[in-house]
Amino acid sequence: MQREAGTAPVHPSNLPVDGGRMWSDLTALASITEPDRPWTRRSFTPRFLEGRAWLERRFREAGLSTRLDAAGNLIGRREGRVPGAPAIMLGSHSDTVPSGGRFDGVAGVIAALEVARALAAAGTELDHPLEIVDFLAEEPSEYGLSCVGSRGMAGALDGGLLELTGPGGERLDAAIDRVGGNVAALAQARRDDVAAFLELHIEQGPVLEATGTDVGIVTAIVGITRLEIVFSGQAGHSGTTPMDRRQDAGVAGARAMVWLRDEARALAAAGDGYFVATVGIAEVRPGGANVVPGEMRLVVDLRGERRGTMEDFLARLGAEMARIAGEEGARVSVATLSDSLPAHCDATLRAALAASARSLGVSSLDMASGAGHDAAFLSRIAPAAMVFIPCREGRSHCPEEWTEPGQLAVGASVLLEAVRALDARLSRRDAPGGEEA
Amino acid sequence: MQREAGTAPVHPSNLPVDGGRMWSDLTALASITEPDRPWTRRSFTPRFLEGRAWLERRFREAGLSTRLDAAGNLIGRREGRVPGAPAIMLGSHSDTVPSGGRFDGVAGVIAALEVARALAAAGTELDHPLEIVDFLAEEPSEYGLSCVGSRGMAGALDGGLLELTGPGGERLDAAIDRVGGNVAALAQARRDDVAAFLELHIEQGPVLEATGTDVGIVTAIVGITRLEIVFSGQAGHSGTTPMDRRQDAGVAGARAMVWLRDEARALAAAGDGYFVATVGIAEVRPGGANVVPGEMRLVVDLRGERRGTMEDFLARLGAEMARIAGEEGARVSVATLSDSLPAHCDATLRAALAASARSLGVSSLDMASGAGHDAAFLSRIAPAAMVFIPCREGRSHCPEEWTEPGQLAVGASVLLEAVRALDARLSRRDAPGGEEA
Repeated sequence: MQREAGTAPVHPSNLPVDGGRMWSDLTALASITEPDRPWTRRSFTPRFLEGRAWLERRFREAGLSTRLDAAGNLIGRREGRVPGAPAIMLGSHSDTVPSGGRFDGVAGVIAALEVARALAAAGTELDHPLEIVDFLAEEPSEYGLSCVGSRGMAGALDGGLLELTGPGGERLDAAIDRVGGNVAALAQARRDDVAAFLELHIEQGPVLEATGTDVGIVTAIVGITRLEIVFSGQAGHSGTTPMDRRQDAGVAGARAMVWLRDEARALAAAGDGYFVATVGIAEVRPGGANVVPGEMRLVVDLRGERRGTMEDFLARLGAEMARIAGEEGARVSVATLSDSLPAHCDATLRAALAASARSLGVSSLDMASGAGHDAAFLSRIAPAAMVFIPCREGRSHCPEEWTEPGQLAVGASVLLEAVRALDARLSRRDAPGGEEA
Repeated sequence: MQREAGTAPVHPSNLPVDGGRMWSDLTALASITEPDRPWTRRSFTPRFLEGRAWLERRFREAGLSTRLDAAGNLIGRREGRVPGAPAIMLGSHSDTVPSGGRFDGVAGVIAALEVARALAAAGTELDHPLEIVDFLAEEPSEYGLSCVGSRGMAGALDGGLLELTGPGGERLDAAIDRVGGNVAALAQARRDDVAAFLELHIEQGPVLEATGTDVGIVTAIVGITRLEIVFSGQAGHSGTTPMDRRQDAGVAGARAMVWLRDEARALAAAGDGYFVATVGIAEVRPGGANVVPGEMRLVVDLRGERRGTMEDFLARLGAEMARIAGEEGARVSVATLSDSLPAHCDATLRAALAASARSLGVSSLDMASGAGHDAAFLSRIAPAAMVFIPCREGRSHCPEEWTEPGQLAVGASVLLEAVRALDARLSRRDAPGGEEA
């Protein structure tokens, strides 16, 4: 991670965006929540559609034309000066987890909208069209899938996924159609006319706050490998089974938890890319106070910026789990529940974001994103990058999630200036005799 | 542990008890089970009372007078030759855990009955009365209490315990009365006329089978200390919380589990009395695949033959939990859920059991009981000891619980010969000028 120090704190009145307007919009959208469970606006629900209707009105009021694509994404568009030029796209998502926060996703949609408004207010015309997207169902939905809309836009919403079922047995394809998509024409949602995609998002982690940095420039969105590790020993009476005759699956699982943490910590400290390992689910069976555990099930969440590091780790993990099981007289199975590759952010876009921060006098830090984002799917079809803004104590997916109005305005300003710079740079590149011709 | 090698295997026809009759009785009593859930005969249920009615008939057929004491224990009695002599008491329990086995408890009741029958068949009159007891509700009952009847006989069924409530809100005192006890006269159940108490029980552990030993002579019934240890850290996003900024309560709990096992194993190996430590319940919260655990709750079951060892262990445990919590940035609380003292078996009775085994040519092993038994409460009011018989693979509290007919007959024979020897020995002691006069 490299820290670019800002020259001086920025006063809100000196920013090229209207922070008050953004905050008002953010608050208004957040208030569209299940009343007994703030802040909840689950994808595919009436409340979600209510939020979208509000957003679409705001998009239109900002002078954008609006449409829903076949994958159910809400898109606002401002045409550019150059006919047929590919789009600069900004966006994030308006859906939330249950009892989530007011910023995760929404901050990025409102910041994108503010970029469009600020450009209009400044009378700035871009060469490229500008598109503002509210991606459908970024959070894990009731259909067991996340990033539904951005997968669709990347051509990654495959047949099997569309058959997933949710509440009342409704299939995902039917649900997408119900909220305004058109699965029969899903291929039309696949875009090949995006010159650049930028997403602003709250960090959802503690690093920016802890280091006093204004924005993070995301280097990569981690690949996520999720494993189920099950140790099977022999259940026994806690009183009558002597210590030297046990096959305690709980002890085997506990040793695995400690090893995973220690190895991941060493790997992260070595500095060869972001890496984290978490055991978030650990279940002992049968789970009686007077029974030596016969089984322990762990769900392991591994996230890494580099695929090679992940593969090395997985190989060591397999050997170590077998060694622990052998020492404890247990058996072990390791199954892969899911596995996704890291998505690397585009160097040109990252440089534009960093230059934008410098020009505004705000500090920035290169950092990996440990969470998944729509940008990961967009990176399959276009150069993509992300800018992170701080959130209090790194907390997210909870009602306490918080970002200061000024932090949001700084992030949106970085986004705005990067859009201006990219519009010019991409035009130079695209022109005859341009730099990359 | 000291192993007394038998001189030669014993042929069933050379044993002083009728193994076939015992096996037939054991099978008959086991068949009185909830039909859809063998082998289940829960205390206080109609099925339990059906089993007791069957047992009482068998007691009477063996020439015993029968009664229910105020604590709800079924007692069969054979008078002795010496008027006013204290009783030699044998017994165990006929209730089971849900989906339990056919031997836990029942084996001891049937063996006690067989001792009475064998004495009658041999025309042997004892100086002391012989009492055969089926203790009420030895297994943890629906009222949240175990060893109900033996507590009552030991004067340890205190007021607060009687107010515990079970199914339908029924209080324990009402339930005891319902099955034939008389709580208003509970003080009468307290005995001070027991010269010796012996209980035969399946080992419920693997040691006798693994060492090829016929019977175990119990040195002590362990004290049990049950703790709840809760580590509290900080929940966080599994992807966005770097390894060096975590307060992972799950890792703290896992380290505690490993430490507890390692320490207990070292203590057990040191040979200073039986000791075991088990974490049978381990719960991670909030328990999401992508959430760093904010809390981990452990229930720890500690059992030891020596109180001093237990107290030393608890002191080290407290310090170590605090150290682990500190290193992981977590807090820890350690609460005592329950705590019972070890019960030591009477040396004279143990010697009588060991001599009985030698006289029969069967092998024996001194060993602690890691499980609780009615004998622990009886030891408060009388010299008490236990004899263990092997069970297959140490399994108990499950339908697969198994002891061979010959193993049960050998155990009952050891009990019988010990009763004969104790009757004579206690008479010498009680006589004017007796050995302990």
